[in-house]
Amino acid sequence: MPDDKSNSWEARAAAHTLYGFTDLPTVAARGTVVLTGGHGPYVTDVHGRDYLDANSGLWNMVAGFDPPGLIAAAQEAYGRFPGYHAFFGRMSDRTVELSEKLIAVSPFADGRVFYTNSGSEANDTLVKMLWFLNAQEGRPERRKILTRVNGYHGVTVVSASMTGKPYNSVFGLPLPGFVHLTCPHYWREGKEGESEAAFTARMAAELEEVIAREGAETIAAFVAEPVMGAGGVIPPSEGYFEAVLPILRKHGIAVISDEVICGLGRTGRAWGCETYGFVPDAIISSKALTAGLFPMGAVILGPELADRLHRASEAVEEFPHGFTASGHPVGCAIALKAIETILEGADGAPPLIDGVHRLTPGFEAGLARLAEHPHIGEWRGKGLMGALEAVQDKATKTPFPGHLSVSERIANACTDAGLICRPLGQAVVLCPPFILTEAQMDEMFGKLERALETVFAEVA
Amino acid sequence: MPDDKSNSWEARAAAHTLYGFTDLPTVAARGTVVLTGGHGPYVTDVHGRDYLDANSGLWNMVAGFDPPGLIAAAQEAYGRFPGYHAFFGRMSDRTVELSEKLIAVSPFADGRVFYTNSGSEANDTLVKMLWFLNAQEGRPERRKILTRVNGYHGVTVVSASMTGKPYNSVFGLPLPGFVHLTCPHYWREGKEGESEAAFTARMAAELEEVIAREGAETIAAFVAEPVMGAGGVIPPSEGYFEAVLPILRKHGIAVISDEVICGLGRTGRAWGCETYGFVPDAIISSKALTAGLFPMGAVILGPELADRLHRASEAVEEFPHGFTASGHPVGCAIALKAIETILEGADGAPPLIDGVHRLTPGFEAGLARLAEHPHIGEWRGKGLMGALEAVQDKATKTPFPGHLSVSERIANACTDAGLICRPLGQAVVLCPPFILTEAQMDEMFGKLERALETVFAEVA
Repeated sequence: MPDDKSNSWEARAAAHTLYGFTDLPTVAARGTVVLTGGHGPYVTDVHGRDYLDANSGLWNMVAGFDPPGLIAAAQEAYGRFPGYHAFFGRMSDRTVELSEKLIAVSPFADGRVFYTNSGSEANDTLVKMLWFLNAQEGRPERRKILTRVNGYHGVTVVSASMTGKPYNSVFGLPLPGFVHLTCPHYWREGKEGESEAAFTARMAAELEEVIAREGAETIAAFVAEPVMGAGGVIPPSEGYFEAVLPILRKHGIAVISDEVICGLGRTGRAWGCETYGFVPDAIISSKALTAGLFPMGAVILGPELADRLHRASEAVEEFPHGFTASGHPVGCAIALKAIETILEGADGAPPLIDGVHRLTPGFEAGLARLAEHPHIGEWRGKGLMGALEAVQDKATKTPFPGHLSVSERIANACTDAGLICRPLGQAVVLCPPFILTEAQMDEMFGKLERALETVFAEVA
Repeated sequence: MPDDKSNSWEARAAAHTLYGFTDLPTVAARGTVVLTGGHGPYVTDVHGRDYLDANSGLWNMVAGFDPPGLIAAAQEAYGRFPGYHAFFGRMSDRTVELSEKLIAVSPFADGRVFYTNSGSEANDTLVKMLWFLNAQEGRPERRKILTRVNGYHGVTVVSASMTGKPYNSVFGLPLPGFVHLTCPHYWREGKEGESEAAFTARMAAELEEVIAREGAETIAAFVAEPVMGAGGVIPPSEGYFEAVLPILRKHGIAVISDEVICGLGRTGRAWGCETYGFVPDAIISSKALTAGLFPMGAVILGPELADRLHRASEAVEEFPHGFTASGHPVGCAIALKAIETILEGADGAPPLIDGVHRLTPGFEAGLARLAEHPHIGEWRGKGLMGALEAVQDKATKTPFPGHLSVSERIANACTDAGLICRPLGQAVVLCPPFILTEAQMDEMFGKLERALETVFAEVA
């Protein structure tokens, strides 16, 4: 590398950072993209280059990269009370207000909120809550957690064990007691000649079999994203939740909706479980909860779990769990503003969720149009999250050979054109900010289309 | 409860929050303390009442509750780039700068940083790193983690398993493979007639025995706080680290310094490991890293672990781990300012660590004076963290009966007097902000002394 590059931002980034979730051959070949700021749905790098971020950062920056009302709320909150915890019977007034707001916008008539700093911590906390509750109520063996292959629930050891992705084998995970059901992805998992209804019935039958095999009395919860996110934007097969929920209820297994990605508008309703017509026992929230401006997660317990957990805690005098920054006053102030901005409308503007409603038809049409390409096997999505699945052979659904790194090449071609989208398996995922204009949506699909053409011409 | 209280802040706080680490009988009797802001080392409640927070929030608000330079840095950072991640070979410029700064102020000549949102996530991440690394290097069985009784490392399932506190049994923790050594607390654990040197030698011999029993080839790391924090401010016995480190090195066991509390000045040096004269293989940082203004943790790997982990990641193309808000640009900007403020001096002011040096002699003298009380068994501490241990009988070190809740009563009496301090077991812990004035230190010890007298008169 020439001397004049040795102090470049790219070289400096490479020197002292351990990259997470980063394809190291790509970064070695192309260098790190070092960013200085953003405007609307665009981020800007150290060379002044703009990228339309069709990932919303990491699903979370739903209000874009310079949302004035949210920035002002954060700045005001720092001037007022720049930090505190929620231990020992003390908390900030903003924490009290956010708990009220979260219960008010939740599907629950009543409930309690526990704050964390991430979705990973929220799922890890949920598991601890259930282990504690079941032990206190005399069922200490009720500890297993059911999730699905391709479900993504985080990266702590426990939330990674819930996650149904093969890469976790490098850590020797999942831990025992984390059981992964089949991914309810009809296009990929459906058998030759199997109808979608028959596929859904097979998923329900598998659940019954797994419960019988493991023993219902050993299973604490079923945790599911309404639409799988980091698994590759996978909506459930038709009728899936209607089929599995009665089985879980019958066996006394808690139903948890992991709304880290779906929650707060992404699927077109406040919560993904509302989009799919069910009320869970608890909701896991993060990401859009602060529109990406502050690390925060929340376990929102519905009335039954909230009451049971509070009673079990009283019996041992305390619930011995909590994170230092749980319920941070600045994070809570930002979340209050984010919820208002997304669901109610703030500062005289319409609610951002209106943008989801406005954009969804064009978003689906754009995905459907690109899916006409002979190397796109399907498009799928819900609301403002979607994916295009690359295939070598559309009729047989045969993927490209892994060594071709097709989705990474598409993503890199997009980056070269000033568009950030995410390769996931052989899919390319789009989940733009809710503030996108129609012109920016055209730019997104236009750049993606040219990248697809370029890459498919190379590999086909 | 009268109607006019039903909409009080206290009632609203109780309605929708699941309290963590909170003595529920106390909060039921006294109500939640709902806070609106702070100034200097004081926080202010909804009734306009001030409390001198001798906990620094939760060890973390070392610059107090309205640090102007840090607040301005946070506000400026929001105006510049209010959020991004550090996945996929992208990150903010502030993230690059913070990694450089952390390596520069670390005891390491070189290294790499991985960001999390908390100390819990940092310890959980460290364990995943070691499991990954050992598996990649052909030693998949090297997974066990050694910590000490009373060591506190967090609350995710794995970091709670590392934590050596009895309350974790309510969750069915620790998980298998987390082994807790004896707490090196000479005053409490030393045998009749045993010298401190003999006690330290016994701690080292126990370590050798545990390694022999478990098998060195199954042990990944020894993780220790230089001074135990949430265990009750317990400095190691004289010569402890000098005795155990050679044993760990001999057996190829990684040495990790959990500096979540000690790091960035609390013990009088930048890092607690420097105070105790050792260089670990990695450092876990959080809390003072952002002076409590933003949720952030960091795993700071020294050169050997950094190189090995980077190579192991290259071999599988990526390190499949990371949190959405890891390396958040606002958090990194705040951390850059916090490190400058604490260690170097910012905005023309001397470094806050000078306050630790200035205050420590008076702090130790104040603790020593209160320890003359017949119901204080010992005072202990290092730098600006200290504890007073209540005892029923000083000569025999007999604690008070648990049902008397002596330390909670002392803490409640302090709260009534406008002083926040923390009960931990039968100890009362003090860890004031680094900005304390001598007059505020006098206020702290004066209020604590009166509370001790009141409570001991009740229970003795």
